[in-house]
Amino acid sequence: MKTIGILGGGQLARMLIESSCRYDFTFRVLSKEPMSPAGKLTRFEIIGDWDDEKALEEFSSGCDVITLENEFIDFNAIKFLEEKGNYIAPGSNVVRSIQDKLLQKETLKNTGVPVADFTRIDSVSDIKDFASLHGYPVILKSRTMGYDGKGNLKINSDAEVNNAFKQLSKRGELLAEKYIDFVLELAVQCSRSTNGELIIYPVVETIQKDHICHIVKASRDRFHYLRETVSDLCKTITEKLGYVGTMGIELFLLPNSELLVNELAPRVHNSGHYTIEGCKTSQFENHIRAILGYKLGDVELTVNSAVMINILGETDSTADYKGLDELVKMQNTYCHIYGKQLSKPGRKMGHITVTGENLENVTANAIEARAKLTI
Amino acid sequence: MKTIGILGGGQLARMLIESSCRYDFTFRVLSKEPMSPAGKLTRFEIIGDWDDEKALEEFSSGCDVITLENEFIDFNAIKFLEEKGNYIAPGSNVVRSIQDKLLQKETLKNTGVPVADFTRIDSVSDIKDFASLHGYPVILKSRTMGYDGKGNLKINSDAEVNNAFKQLSKRGELLAEKYIDFVLELAVQCSRSTNGELIIYPVVETIQKDHICHIVKASRDRFHYLRETVSDLCKTITEKLGYVGTMGIELFLLPNSELLVNELAPRVHNSGHYTIEGCKTSQFENHIRAILGYKLGDVELTVNSAVMINILGETDSTADYKGLDELVKMQNTYCHIYGKQLSKPGRKMGHITVTGENLENVTANAIEARAKLTI
Repeated sequence: MKTIGILGGGQLARMLIESSCRYDFTFRVLSKEPMSPAGKLTRFEIIGDWDDEKALEEFSSGCDVITLENEFIDFNAIKFLEEKGNYIAPGSNVVRSIQDKLLQKETLKNTGVPVADFTRIDSVSDIKDFASLHGYPVILKSRTMGYDGKGNLKINSDAEVNNAFKQLSKRGELLAEKYIDFVLELAVQCSRSTNGELIIYPVVETIQKDHICHIVKASRDRFHYLRETVSDLCKTITEKLGYVGTMGIELFLLPNSELLVNELAPRVHNSGHYTIEGCKTSQFENHIRAILGYKLGDVELTVNSAVMINILGETDSTADYKGLDELVKMQNTYCHIYGKQLSKPGRKMGHITVTGENLENVTANAIEARAKLTI
Repeated sequence: MKTIGILGGGQLARMLIESSCRYDFTFRVLSKEPMSPAGKLTRFEIIGDWDDEKALEEFSSGCDVITLENEFIDFNAIKFLEEKGNYIAPGSNVVRSIQDKLLQKETLKNTGVPVADFTRIDSVSDIKDFASLHGYPVILKSRTMGYDGKGNLKINSDAEVNNAFKQLSKRGELLAEKYIDFVLELAVQCSRSTNGELIIYPVVETIQKDHICHIVKASRDRFHYLRETVSDLCKTITEKLGYVGTMGIELFLLPNSELLVNELAPRVHNSGHYTIEGCKTSQFENHIRAILGYKLGDVELTVNSAVMINILGETDSTADYKGLDELVKMQNTYCHIYGKQLSKPGRKMGHITVTGENLENVTANAIEARAKLTI
């Protein structure tokens, strides 16, 4: 059976392994720390950082294909592995043009994909110029390494520009985007195989709390009217990039029912965790199928509604989950615990998916389920 | 999170781990050989035999509960672990009264559970006496260590008695049973928790080939008329034994629609593999829940029909699976590969479950799917 390498040992790598352990693929995981969430499920956890060439070589040894769970990985590490003759999906060029948010936006815009107005920012006056053209608020963003609201600042007036620039430019280069007054934040996952086959998951609503994904709501037919537009977007984006694997696409739904692409993630995505219990084939299994060049699995919802709620750390402490015995009493409720040793405020420690008929009830059940668990 | 020990590292242990890896329990596996099917999915595979007290102690260290995947384990190994203060489910007394088929039949009979007529056999004349009372054919069986037809012989006449006795008595003590001319072979799994909660899976048809489980057919409402009888049987048997965990019960359906219990398995069972994709909660997850004292999950079928077909080894060779890429093209078809390094004739190397509406079509699809895979 095939050997699959995953750069990173977090929960996304873990769920990739879980999704296809019935196939007896061998998984090799490169993790900075031992006993990572994914490393617990394989005998081949190689400890090392992305710039450690020896670790990269040990990790990649015998892999039929290598993939990643994190777009922050240094693009040079991927390139290094490619130059050694490894097949990596998605590849270094794709990751590079996504991990740099300015490059990502330019790629999208050049392909005709609708995005918010944006510009490169090198100085305070660049921000003010952009605002005078598009108005406030402006979102100032780090070009790289931003996630869960880190590396993003909302600027409401000229008075806030200096401070924001000073704060964020410490993190590296910047871009600015027009603030979008969206009706809803949506997301979609799609998987594209080495042979070009593309499947598109249902469009879901995502609800953020403190800029971190909090709840994802999937419901049959709810965004059916967006289906064609979203399909075209997925096709355009993945073909333009020559993308292979599952991709997460964050969208803004505008008052006029049009869509803007907010951000791409070149990997399985938190907004698609509901697919494990909610869809015929999960985003994780289809990622594995895609990078192996296998036929992709059906992705329709098997339930009317599926709601995912994240389990986020609340304090700096050793993770100590309590309440699972109470949680399993709830029907159609699926708890995933990632196995991280340390909890931190906002850290993704697990998630719960609840399935059922009525979206409102299912959402209420998900919130109730979450409350049963303490970390 | 809890630490669970499994005595044995085969496919049943593997599927126990798969069924609950989203909970991040720690699994410790005792296996005779390294890189066992289950050992591939945990960092804690202890190598040793059941009579190796040092290995048993190392294995059991830190376990909250210990279970087993094989009823042939020496009852003394379980007792040894119990005496060291470990909680084992099912416990040594239960395993003892099931692994000895004579004791098992006596226990069942004494509890009022219908079984075929049987007797203890110490000599050739015991067999002839039994036959003169009940008629031929007679099934001669080893009291222990019989499986997949090994340790069983069908005797059709007095002329065959000597040979059969000579052959089987090499394996140890014997019993004889009246040959049952059944209409169908059926099976059912049930799970009973430490707190006495009992859930009963649907009754399924099992089809053997060369005495090895070949196909299992589950279909909604098909054996509904047996539901009450089977529930009573499960309740009687598990309560009498004080059983904890999932149990497999093999049944004979007689021409008059009555049932006889053929054999018990004190563990998850091949006839219940279809529950992974066919039921709301698999026999594996409910086994884990049961031994932890958690609420058991719903067991109803989520599909109209589910058919499981075993992937059996054909020759003595290194296992080399081919055709998975073709197999995944089939819809509603779920392939499980156990990860055994060596294939042998009749060895269980994997299984495929197909789900769908019409039982006949689903069965045909399962057979078609099996044909796509070579080992």
